[in-house]
Amino acid sequence: MLKRYLLAPGPTPVPPEVLLAMAMPIIHHRSADFMPVLESARKGLKWLYQTENDVLILSSSGTGGMVGAVNNFFNHGDKALVINGGKFGERWTKICRAYGLEVKEIMVEWGYAVRPEVVEKALKDDPSIKGVFVQACETSTGVYHDIEALGKIVSKSGDTLFVVDAISALVAHDLKTDAWGVDIMVGGSQKGIMLPPGLAFASVSEKAWKRNASSKMPRFYFNFKKERENLLKNQTNFTSPVTLIIGLNEAIKMLQKEGLENVFARHARLAKATRAAVVALGLSLYTKESPSNSVTAVEAPAGIDGQEIYKTLREKYGITGAGGQDKAKGKIFRLAHLGYAGAFDVITAISGLEMVLKSMGYKLALGAGVAAAEEILMEDK
Amino acid sequence: MLKRYLLAPGPTPVPPEVLLAMAMPIIHHRSADFMPVLESARKGLKWLYQTENDVLILSSSGTGGMVGAVNNFFNHGDKALVINGGKFGERWTKICRAYGLEVKEIMVEWGYAVRPEVVEKALKDDPSIKGVFVQACETSTGVYHDIEALGKIVSKSGDTLFVVDAISALVAHDLKTDAWGVDIMVGGSQKGIMLPPGLAFASVSEKAWKRNASSKMPRFYFNFKKERENLLKNQTNFTSPVTLIIGLNEAIKMLQKEGLENVFARHARLAKATRAAVVALGLSLYTKESPSNSVTAVEAPAGIDGQEIYKTLREKYGITGAGGQDKAKGKIFRLAHLGYAGAFDVITAISGLEMVLKSMGYKLALGAGVAAAEEILMEDK
Repeated sequence: MLKRYLLAPGPTPVPPEVLLAMAMPIIHHRSADFMPVLESARKGLKWLYQTENDVLILSSSGTGGMVGAVNNFFNHGDKALVINGGKFGERWTKICRAYGLEVKEIMVEWGYAVRPEVVEKALKDDPSIKGVFVQACETSTGVYHDIEALGKIVSKSGDTLFVVDAISALVAHDLKTDAWGVDIMVGGSQKGIMLPPGLAFASVSEKAWKRNASSKMPRFYFNFKKERENLLKNQTNFTSPVTLIIGLNEAIKMLQKEGLENVFARHARLAKATRAAVVALGLSLYTKESPSNSVTAVEAPAGIDGQEIYKTLREKYGITGAGGQDKAKGKIFRLAHLGYAGAFDVITAISGLEMVLKSMGYKLALGAGVAAAEEILMEDK
Repeated sequence: MLKRYLLAPGPTPVPPEVLLAMAMPIIHHRSADFMPVLESARKGLKWLYQTENDVLILSSSGTGGMVGAVNNFFNHGDKALVINGGKFGERWTKICRAYGLEVKEIMVEWGYAVRPEVVEKALKDDPSIKGVFVQACETSTGVYHDIEALGKIVSKSGDTLFVVDAISALVAHDLKTDAWGVDIMVGGSQKGIMLPPGLAFASVSEKAWKRNASSKMPRFYFNFKKERENLLKNQTNFTSPVTLIIGLNEAIKMLQKEGLENVFARHARLAKATRAAVVALGLSLYTKESPSNSVTAVEAPAGIDGQEIYKTLREKYGITGAGGQDKAKGKIFRLAHLGYAGAFDVITAISGLEMVLKSMGYKLALGAGVAAAEEILMEDK
């Protein structure tokens, strides 16, 4: 028996409390049984999003929420400013182009965060830009973009919408939707929120709703206006994924018990411990600045293939982390500390990594990474 | 404690075997753990669909599959022939219009099935029609449209695509995708397939794939070509709803053990017993011809509100059936026998109905409906 550990940046482990709640018999989505469930989920998401806006709940992967964020608020030919610093930034560009938006990209070197002043200048240079698209955490590089700073800049810029893919950042980072002027913030279920894949979320500001009225693109499944009308009646437009929404309530209950500040602090601590351990092993972080609390991206040592590290961790030690994507493939590996994660998930990852690297001929002192992680993990206890 | 019984035409009850499989810890969707799961699901769906075509698996409600069936194979201005005999026929029209198709509707009186010769004439009169859209089971009226006859007609008609919403008919009806020339057949998880909501399915014929190449509508989330490319690698385009696909395999395993012919015969028997019981109670079927095996639609007796019957069944006896939709609201109620359903689900529904109607002043002999159902349910044993 090879005992398994899921340490990928999504899907993430689901707590047993949530799995059990989802294993209960199905209830009907248009019934009085379900309406309080959806009402509670709706309120819980507002709490998690730190917003007075309604947060829509969609039956899709997170990408469905990204598509909806483009499809409901823009028109063919509208100008979009996309911050592209990795695979998911690139996805914003692809979605915008699929719907005929004119995309201007701010290319950010992989491993680095966007400079807010570059965005500020781009908006000044072209006031006709209708939307700024960014990731909070760019999962492919482990970088956190400064949503607070960007929000302040976009807010000053007339009716430009600020659209944030927070799929892998929610729960791991303090994201103040309203205070920072985020117009649309997209989330997904299989990341910090500790659920199986199958739900996307999107908060929508009043400014964005105003824009929605003038957006004439064809849409049917991801129709945010209809979803909002339904949500206010504690319904969804189409059949609700009832099990996932039941699970969502359980997961939010757990997060509420811990408290938002503690949730963020836990993620920050686990991320810090992981980085300290990796550096203590003589490795370099792939994330050159502004590392996220969700996932740590590490460069493979010279002469060792990052994919081999990922595969050996998985096959020999049962630890599912992640390799690199696209141009980072082979060069890096990634370890997540997202959602249902605690101190000993970090220890497991680092211990596995030590054994894998040692077996591959990399010179290290066994236990050195673990010791460095423990230094951090002890700090708050 | 009010013990609960779910007898709605979706969501339907999920067998305990499936609920338990879905409660297992999460596995990663891009991992070797998951690829055999998806491969098995893909093969199982082909078996269930009776097709050599690949059957795509989408993370959405069934409506997402309907949207994809329009969005991937047609262009703005294309002519669509929609058979509209209920709320879901109307949905085809709405989706086609949302994407700029020119819709010609064949209006069918609610409770009746389309006459195949009317479709034949419409196609002859206008050879530029690019697609014919229909429901196999129109859930709002309980009618089964003759997919075999329609398939033969559309097949003769050049490159017109035959698009079937089989969301509530799959599993309950023998639907021969290939033999009957169905180009795109849409399914959903929360009906006969005995899963929670959250998956849509779509089989796509070679003829439809050829058309796909010339379809230029904007699309990103429901991109069938990309889903197919991924499926052939035992992947999905975006994050797979892993728990639901694990459940799908369990459910298909149960159906395979029973055997397709037995599955269809069971549904036909339960439907026949339900109709016989209702008629024995002096009630009239709302479905005037071609009743489906999925759901039985019944007219409320004179002076009694159909919604009150639905509500009293639910609140007093714990039985969740369904009321009427749109113009049938108040006039009818519906009882499903779909998916994880057996003889005593019918008996429960009819017994509950007898007690409810009696308490509302309707004249009946308690047990008369149950006796009529038993006559049918005994036939094959």
